[in-house]
Amino acid sequence: MKKHNFSPGPCILPQQVFEKTSKAVLDYNGIGLSVMEISHRSKEFIEIMENARTLALEHLGLENKGYKALFLQGGASMQFLMASYNLLEKKAAYLNTGTWSSKAVKEAKLFGEVIEVASSKDANFNYIPKDYTIPPDVDYFHCTSNNTIFGTQLKTLPQTDVPVVCDMSSDIFSRNLDFSKFGLIYAGAQKNMGPSGTTLVVIKEDILGKVSRSIPSMLDYKVHLDKDSMFNTPPVLAVYVSMLTLEWLKEKGGISAMEKINEAKAGLLYTEIDRNPLFKGFVAQKGDRSPMNATFNLTDESVKEKFDTMWKEAGINGLNGHRSVGGYRASMYNALPLESVQVLVDVMQEAERTA
Amino acid sequence: MKKHNFSPGPCILPQQVFEKTSKAVLDYNGIGLSVMEISHRSKEFIEIMENARTLALEHLGLENKGYKALFLQGGASMQFLMASYNLLEKKAAYLNTGTWSSKAVKEAKLFGEVIEVASSKDANFNYIPKDYTIPPDVDYFHCTSNNTIFGTQLKTLPQTDVPVVCDMSSDIFSRNLDFSKFGLIYAGAQKNMGPSGTTLVVIKEDILGKVSRSIPSMLDYKVHLDKDSMFNTPPVLAVYVSMLTLEWLKEKGGISAMEKINEAKAGLLYTEIDRNPLFKGFVAQKGDRSPMNATFNLTDESVKEKFDTMWKEAGINGLNGHRSVGGYRASMYNALPLESVQVLVDVMQEAERTA
Ligand SMILES: Cc1ncc(COP(=O)(O)O)c(C=O)c1O
Ligand SMILES: Cc1ncc(COP(=O)(O)O)c(C=O)c1O
Ligand SMILES: [Mg+2]
Ligand SMILES: [Mg+2]
Ligand SMILES: [Mg+2]
Ligand SMILES: [Mg+2]
Repeated sequence: MKKHNFSPGPCILPQQVFEKTSKAVLDYNGIGLSVMEISHRSKEFIEIMENARTLALEHLGLENKGYKALFLQGGASMQFLMASYNLLEKKAAYLNTGTWSSKAVKEAKLFGEVIEVASSKDANFNYIPKDYTIPPDVDYFHCTSNNTIFGTQLKTLPQTDVPVVCDMSSDIFSRNLDFSKFGLIYAGAQKNMGPSGTTLVVIKEDILGKVSRSIPSMLDYKVHLDKDSMFNTPPVLAVYVSMLTLEWLKEKGGISAMEKINEAKAGLLYTEIDRNPLFKGFVAQKGDRSPMNATFNLTDESVKEKFDTMWKEAGINGLNGHRSVGGYRASMYNALPLESVQVLVDVMQEAERTA
Repeated sequence: MKKHNFSPGPCILPQQVFEKTSKAVLDYNGIGLSVMEISHRSKEFIEIMENARTLALEHLGLENKGYKALFLQGGASMQFLMASYNLLEKKAAYLNTGTWSSKAVKEAKLFGEVIEVASSKDANFNYIPKDYTIPPDVDYFHCTSNNTIFGTQLKTLPQTDVPVVCDMSSDIFSRNLDFSKFGLIYAGAQKNMGPSGTTLVVIKEDILGKVSRSIPSMLDYKVHLDKDSMFNTPPVLAVYVSMLTLEWLKEKGGISAMEKINEAKAGLLYTEIDRNPLFKGFVAQKGDRSPMNATFNLTDESVKEKFDTMWKEAGINGLNGHRSVGGYRASMYNALPLESVQVLVDVMQEAERTA
């Protein structure tokens, strides 16, 4: 039986994407070759790559606005490094809202001065700092739009004239923002976009070329842009599956339609977390809650064993919280159906009844 | 109809690997989840990763000899950079036998002095230089065991006491060598090991820790070793398919058995290239020829259109030579069956008869 997959990433993808991929692994579009054995220089793969790049920009509303999309390797963690390698000349401002922001800060420090404009570390990142100033003389401002581990999300973007660099790994394509406010957006594919193994990087080209260091080819955004994301062999299968997922998103009505579904899923679960005396949310202020990753704890730890058995028996997967938060985390990415959330809510109510 | 796939990479993989992958994309081992949606922290994926790492060392005869295997992202091109970032303190020696060696040299120059001990660039890399000396005071010696584009292969390794770093992207697992002579071996998966999207790195641990620069986390071999190749989200599917391919290799009898098959395939094709007056080999000396990539040209260019039509009609894919060599390149990686080579030889003979 198909599980209800609340895994934080790699995570559930649309069923039609699994089905198309499974077929393409045996024979891609009837050409007598697996999608895994076609050359990245073949017309078939060039088409896949161009489709994926175009769809990404289309969904974000960034076509013909000076932006380009790349599908790179290395995960979002490689972008912590590449962002600063390519953009950090003297100093940069970072907002520290969780484990991933902290790691981004760490890598940036190798390349220049890092000003941490604010941090919620004092409260185990259970809120989003709001009152901070971005110095006008920094090379860029870096933030994490959604904190996968702690379950918080930035609802509004700070006003600033410096380029905004954003790690959107865990909420890209899930809600509408004015994406043209960003200089650089990056996201590991393995949440809302595809399988692990590729990373979307969306760059406003005019923010490049301003650092004086020499950049190794593989870390240089310009090198990848000049080669249309084919400087070296791309992760063919991961890009193909990402393309399929972006096509699915288009069929579903794009980000706006998806945002409504995501709100419905999040509304259903958070309402239950609040209502049910057995559970409490981890995030301090409701306004900071992430619709993607809902973090919550039991109010009575003695129920843990029973509750764990119950959700596993209901076919739920991936609900355990990250060790730095404990409790539970329900990741409700784009491909997770509302029905899966309903199954979880039913289990929570059953747990209350039988407690 | 399944093609005879002579593609230089990404390339043919064993049919059983395509079939198992196709199933696992729908449901991994009956657990109700696609292999693309399981967490990299799940027991299922940890087992896949550990299997793949162990099989790689086993095949190379490097277990319990101070070596560890990693499956990273970024391709072999990222290793050009990581090798020098981690190992180059003052100077390094490079043997330049082709496009890939030249690119490795270029990246290394960002980190220290590079001594090119020899180069066959003067003859469009159609031979392997043999008389050169490796200075005893370099940090390491770098070579490319098989030159994918030009179709040459290093048959013997030079004697040296410095660590030997080798790009084995296009002939790893295809022939026996004393792998314990190497300090660092790397290979993009997309030839003999799996799909594109992961890179095998085999490191003798005691060669690390000797440079004074600070290394960004994602580029630091020690960081990846400490985290058992799971510092960040690995390319789950690419590692899984690599594991399946390494299992297949084991079933087939390992490298020694594969080497015999590869010799038979190469023997069949090179004999025909030499015998058939319509064709001539590109590599100057027969002793330098690669069993993996056979490069050859027509002796009479006017036959080109006809020959191209003939091999395409015979169901052959990926035979065009790289633009820097022209003509043809038949890549005969581990998974290519002898029958495919026979089909090519038959077409070559038919072309001769009808010329
Ligand atoms: C917000 C965020 N940033 C960065 C990362 C790291 O991504 P990767 O493992 O692809 O390097 C993650 C992983 O979950 C994440 O959620
Ligand atoms: C010998 C060799 N080294 C390096 C590379 C570059 O590999 P990647 O595209 O994975 O960076 C290739 C690619 O074909 C190769 O054949
Ligand atoms: Mg976080
Ligand atoms: Mg409650
Ligand atoms: Mg070459
Ligand atoms: Mg001949």
